[in-house]
Amino acid sequence: MRTQVGRTQVGIVGAGPAGLLLAQMLNREGIDSVVLEARSRSHIESRIRAGLLEQGSVDTLAEAGLDARLRREGLPHDGLALRFAGASHRIDLQALTGRRVTIYGQQEVVKDMVAARLATGRPLHFGAEEVALHDIATDRPRLTWKQEGVPQELHCDVIAGCDGFHGPSREAMPPEILRIYERTYPFAWLGILAEAPPVSPELLYARHEEGFALATMRSQHLSRLYLQCAPEENLALWPEERIWQALGTRLGAVNRGRIVQKGLTAMRSYVAEPMRHGRLFLAGDAAHIVPPTGAKGMNLAIADVRVLAAALTSFFRQGDQGLMDRYSAICLQRIWKVQRFSWWMTALLHRFSEEDAFEPRVQLAELDYLVHSEAARTALAEQYVGLPYDI
Amino acid sequence: MRTQVGRTQVGIVGAGPAGLLLAQMLNREGIDSVVLEARSRSHIESRIRAGLLEQGSVDTLAEAGLDARLRREGLPHDGLALRFAGASHRIDLQALTGRRVTIYGQQEVVKDMVAARLATGRPLHFGAEEVALHDIATDRPRLTWKQEGVPQELHCDVIAGCDGFHGPSREAMPPEILRIYERTYPFAWLGILAEAPPVSPELLYARHEEGFALATMRSQHLSRLYLQCAPEENLALWPEERIWQALGTRLGAVNRGRIVQKGLTAMRSYVAEPMRHGRLFLAGDAAHIVPPTGAKGMNLAIADVRVLAAALTSFFRQGDQGLMDRYSAICLQRIWKVQRFSWWMTALLHRFSEEDAFEPRVQLAELDYLVHSEAARTALAEQYVGLPYDI
Repeated sequence: MRTQVGRTQVGIVGAGPAGLLLAQMLNREGIDSVVLEARSRSHIESRIRAGLLEQGSVDTLAEAGLDARLRREGLPHDGLALRFAGASHRIDLQALTGRRVTIYGQQEVVKDMVAARLATGRPLHFGAEEVALHDIATDRPRLTWKQEGVPQELHCDVIAGCDGFHGPSREAMPPEILRIYERTYPFAWLGILAEAPPVSPELLYARHEEGFALATMRSQHLSRLYLQCAPEENLALWPEERIWQALGTRLGAVNRGRIVQKGLTAMRSYVAEPMRHGRLFLAGDAAHIVPPTGAKGMNLAIADVRVLAAALTSFFRQGDQGLMDRYSAICLQRIWKVQRFSWWMTALLHRFSEEDAFEPRVQLAELDYLVHSEAARTALAEQYVGLPYDI
Repeated sequence: MRTQVGRTQVGIVGAGPAGLLLAQMLNREGIDSVVLEARSRSHIESRIRAGLLEQGSVDTLAEAGLDARLRREGLPHDGLALRFAGASHRIDLQALTGRRVTIYGQQEVVKDMVAARLATGRPLHFGAEEVALHDIATDRPRLTWKQEGVPQELHCDVIAGCDGFHGPSREAMPPEILRIYERTYPFAWLGILAEAPPVSPELLYARHEEGFALATMRSQHLSRLYLQCAPEENLALWPEERIWQALGTRLGAVNRGRIVQKGLTAMRSYVAEPMRHGRLFLAGDAAHIVPPTGAKGMNLAIADVRVLAAALTSFFRQGDQGLMDRYSAICLQRIWKVQRFSWWMTALLHRFSEEDAFEPRVQLAELDYLVHSEAARTALAEQYVGLPYDI
């Protein structure tokens, strides 16, 4: 079958928050792009992922014109609660930092972005199969894929790899230039979505002898709840009664309701450096994974894209490659701070080992220090609402 | 040989800072004590240990009337420096917390305390051999020992075990009630005392790819310098030239001079709970060890003794055992926070493993965050100068 050949300025692999936000920001600068997504529209608009936006992420979505529904339906939280030793303690994010976070599901962000993309009339191809990257070290990188069986080829000036941890973009980088940094955890999260009012008006993070738990919400009638469990946990061992019992024990109380979704979230810290090779730029999960405790995955992707959009804009508008050359270094400054914060929150609240008796004492001492020290609470809060952007 | 029998209110085992401070504070309340010390006076007055006093420790020594020489000869520091990635960054303790720390060698503290004790005329026995504790679960605990070969027996109301990690007091507690919490480190410190002016006007903590280093001082002509080394390091492998080279590399610069003392400092985190059984009370290193990075060992001993002196005073003066009953719980609140801080500073600045590439990135990210965040600097500073006392 004859290959269909096309041309664009920026070939974007992946229609998650990173790829779609980049497409939108480039469009506003008059820069052309093509977005390829392996999955279907209904798949990416319904998969349940993160749901918390830093203030800076909300501002970035607003600048990109993507915040109309977010402003109406997002649930701003001015604080969060830490629960340990049988009591909950509020961290007042707003009072400590003047900023807040907003609950708005990643699938809602994606829906808004897909609608915005389609409204521009620029290409967004779902069901793109066998996506492959070529000639990334040259000035004319190419993307190939199949669309409903028809071979496609796209000539680009730049490729943005926004295709997540398992996508082909990072794999297209020469292995000898990639450095991988990784940390694994001896646990996972069992997450449920339940038709029940939230047990707490804000996020509730619980450290308990039995393990971590987290209560958050998607609406006033829909709760998102997580439990620390074994890394390869068999969900059949967690019938509804056991889930509600464990949540009640760890969170102090819980509102029960019909469980409409149940799944396992793996825990991993991962960074690939550098994030750019030739004309290929990685953004979001394609380059780094954080454990979900600090709620940073989507926010970090948005922060990458801010830098990438600025870099590509100065390249296409002024022919200036300076910011493209500094893209990886600028992003990694933030990424490593966020990796540290996500590891720290994870280490503070989870049970790591049955054997180490020292660790739980240190966790409780740190939590007790934290809730009694304004400086320590402020440090947590300023990282939780999001550190200032580097550019 | 006939046993010499005596009687006191408080039998104090150990003439380190904990035991001698307790003796002094009790004396000011008119409470009698006998202090037993296994070593000689010249030994305890010359052994080089910690040298940094929190503001609260200085205030406590002042309240006990032990600060005359400390006020004249102590070196107050309003800040410290953190060095990493080739640059030093000052943490302004005074500006961040309104408090400061004071450099004054532990042996100087001990000299002042021995002189004060001898001036009271109350007993302080050096060279006490084979010290043993008896009947600690009764109202009449006893101490036995040999003084120049002559058996001694002392009937007490209370025994204070201030005899350090290797002393007999903790060992006298029933093993079934003791819980031991411990963490070890894959390194030690090689410490030198050198006749050289300090390289920095305040403490300089350095994180370097080769390992940790610390520069501090005993006077304007005497430097105390430390290097991270292997846990059972052979000092013969560290001739002077290698020591100075390593210090220069890690600290950025160093002032050389005659090395007058050289030794290895082990690194350990250790807590024994509870700190009281019957009429035996442990204080200081007898109950807990911190790695020296946070300079907390002597300060924690002083904090224990503040509580113990208050508890024994209300027991002997009002017959109130309430504070004695809460002694262990009150002290452990602070001890675990200080354990956490000492572990954290150690983890932030040392090289733990050749293999783990994630860790150095996280260390550098945390240091970079720390020096750019006033909240994080304040949290470090308020712990470094010393958290408020619980009583």
